[in-house]
Amino acid sequence: MLKKLILIGCLTHILLEANAQEKILAPTPPMGWMTWNYFGVNINEQIIREMADAINHSGMMKAGYQYIMIDDGWQGGRDNKNNLIPDPQKFPSGIKALADYVHSKGLKLGIYSDAAPLTCAGYTASLHFEGQDAKTFAEWQIDYLKYDYCNAPADSLTAKIRYKTMADALRQSGREIVFGICEWGERQPWRWARNAGGQLWRTTFDVRDNWKSIIAIADMNFMLSHYAGPGHWNDPDMLVVGLYGNKGPSGDLGGTGCTDTEYQSQMSLWSMMAAPLIATNDVRNMNEETKKILLNDEVIAINQDALGKQAELKIKNETIYVLVKPLLQGSYAVAILNRSQILQNTTIDFAALGFAGKIELRDVWTKQQQKINGKWSGSIRPHETKLFTVKLVR
Amino acid sequence: MLKKLILIGCLTHILLEANAQEKILAPTPPMGWMTWNYFGVNINEQIIREMADAINHSGMMKAGYQYIMIDDGWQGGRDNKNNLIPDPQKFPSGIKALADYVHSKGLKLGIYSDAAPLTCAGYTASLHFEGQDAKTFAEWQIDYLKYDYCNAPADSLTAKIRYKTMADALRQSGREIVFGICEWGERQPWRWARNAGGQLWRTTFDVRDNWKSIIAIADMNFMLSHYAGPGHWNDPDMLVVGLYGNKGPSGDLGGTGCTDTEYQSQMSLWSMMAAPLIATNDVRNMNEETKKILLNDEVIAINQDALGKQAELKIKNETIYVLVKPLLQGSYAVAILNRSQILQNTTIDFAALGFAGKIELRDVWTKQQQKINGKWSGSIRPHETKLFTVKLVR
Repeated sequence: MLKKLILIGCLTHILLEANAQEKILAPTPPMGWMTWNYFGVNINEQIIREMADAINHSGMMKAGYQYIMIDDGWQGGRDNKNNLIPDPQKFPSGIKALADYVHSKGLKLGIYSDAAPLTCAGYTASLHFEGQDAKTFAEWQIDYLKYDYCNAPADSLTAKIRYKTMADALRQSGREIVFGICEWGERQPWRWARNAGGQLWRTTFDVRDNWKSIIAIADMNFMLSHYAGPGHWNDPDMLVVGLYGNKGPSGDLGGTGCTDTEYQSQMSLWSMMAAPLIATNDVRNMNEETKKILLNDEVIAINQDALGKQAELKIKNETIYVLVKPLLQGSYAVAILNRSQILQNTTIDFAALGFAGKIELRDVWTKQQQKINGKWSGSIRPHETKLFTVKLVR
Repeated sequence: MLKKLILIGCLTHILLEANAQEKILAPTPPMGWMTWNYFGVNINEQIIREMADAINHSGMMKAGYQYIMIDDGWQGGRDNKNNLIPDPQKFPSGIKALADYVHSKGLKLGIYSDAAPLTCAGYTASLHFEGQDAKTFAEWQIDYLKYDYCNAPADSLTAKIRYKTMADALRQSGREIVFGICEWGERQPWRWARNAGGQLWRTTFDVRDNWKSIIAIADMNFMLSHYAGPGHWNDPDMLVVGLYGNKGPSGDLGGTGCTDTEYQSQMSLWSMMAAPLIATNDVRNMNEETKKILLNDEVIAINQDALGKQAELKIKNETIYVLVKPLLQGSYAVAILNRSQILQNTTIDFAALGFAGKIELRDVWTKQQQKINGKWSGSIRPHETKLFTVKLVR
């Protein structure tokens, strides 16, 4: 018995040491901006520099958006030593110079590849070159890798092996690089992607710039709350906030657009789901509504709360969904979503949600506070999401 | 029983049909010129064009040398669709234009790759891209592929699989491309390379420009005579005839050089062994001795004899080796090699070799004929090879 206790003691000690040594990458959901939804493959170093400047000046960086993610279309092939090279027309100064620029603004740089011979857009990908490519990314001072799964076999085992191979290569690259697994939830990555070495994993198909897409993705992602936590996040894809159906140089990637209420709902729901907050609009030209949505510091604080809990769906009826997200130090956030296309006058029983007694609700969009005891009543516009923080009142 | 006979009949028919449909590639040993021993990786399209011109004008083409082989060092990497591209400095017009030029001279173009991520000289190779590269070679109108084995695992099974993969890809490329397997005899390729789809396979380490290298390679290759035949050849590597220790732009690839007698011996022995005759000297600048050796049509006829037999080593003593090669229509070639460093006065019992009665020997180097009955006596210089054709005299 003594032996056993000593053994357990030792194991605990070893585990504690291992945890202490391994720093958690992405302790809160990554925030940033990505090229794909607005620019598609029509990207270049000038665009990225302008975006870094815009994110730096617009207040986005201060609000927490730190990763600038180069998505598909940057690749120029491989040199005759198999080293990845960027498209020389699009990135004549090279990725390292671009990373230096982005870093000089206080931002981080993400890049994109795929677990197959070619990416989704049909460019050079990393299968069989994981070690070499991870080293290249590290040399370029890359901070984040989105790793796609186009042109790869459908089975789960192959996916797990290929993702683990790249995750291991990144870990051995000598640089801390966040690893985003992107196989669109088709092989239930929430069950294995964390063990494979991912800090986040897409849970669904690609988001499009319309409400139908947003709500369909949210519905799938709501159910996965207990898989999320610091360093391991469900990724329901990017924010389409501020796109307004403007497809930009990307061509036809986006949808037909959303209302500001719908964009605000996406921001609320994604924040509640502890989802990565990855903007995709043209941040060089944002209107005031878009800024209000993307830069609301109280909403972002809910998303970035260090407890790292994804909201649970507590009430689910035909028109109204209610989500509850525990926050640090015993506070909570609550979201009330009107899924219907008409205004809903509704009453939510907060006591039944577990908030017995007097509570103070703060609407983080309107900044208004109210005290309630048990029930909240109000009207919610079509596709609107009310977002409250909840404090117990003594 | 009747059923069985019919079945056998059908099978025979099917096999005959299959044989009739499948054209034999390399029905005689390939002849040509290769960049490696003189130029190393320092090649370019201008050199290849000049060689095509020189081979065309010098009589080499007329003598049968038809393949111009680009060896390692041509690669520029892969474009962003994973297509192989040539080094843009070395081959600014591209390989297809070069093939067109070479074909316009009545010659054929060979190229080089490797069954690993990188070649021997450390450039882009074809592992995992066999199908795509074979299609590229076919589009470029390539006629021959030398496929090396640097940076690949040592075991035989992997080698067989990798070579078969490329052979299958070449067969499916839509073009007839001769496939030369180059794993240096380390995995006894004579036992499996034909089934893997090679028309020839290197049997030894690389030849160097010195007698020691030539004779060491010959000694290994002599023993493999029964593996050779039309469309499937032992390859004891290239001819070093005419290099004279001149390393050219290749740097230090070659040896310190041979005497003309030794070069003539290599030509004799390689012809007897039905080896590929691949010159490596600077054919733009050949002296008369080199031309005499490389362009001897009777020696080449022995090599190219359509029966496709490799000579057998019939006499082997401390100083003298005698090889016998059956030719079409009942004639033979006989080579007598003096391995020692002194002149040997020797007598060979042709009757004991199977040539009973009166025979006519024609020395294909001196063009002199003599009739003998049973025995031949003569003097052979150090490292000289006497080469005779043998006719029965009625």
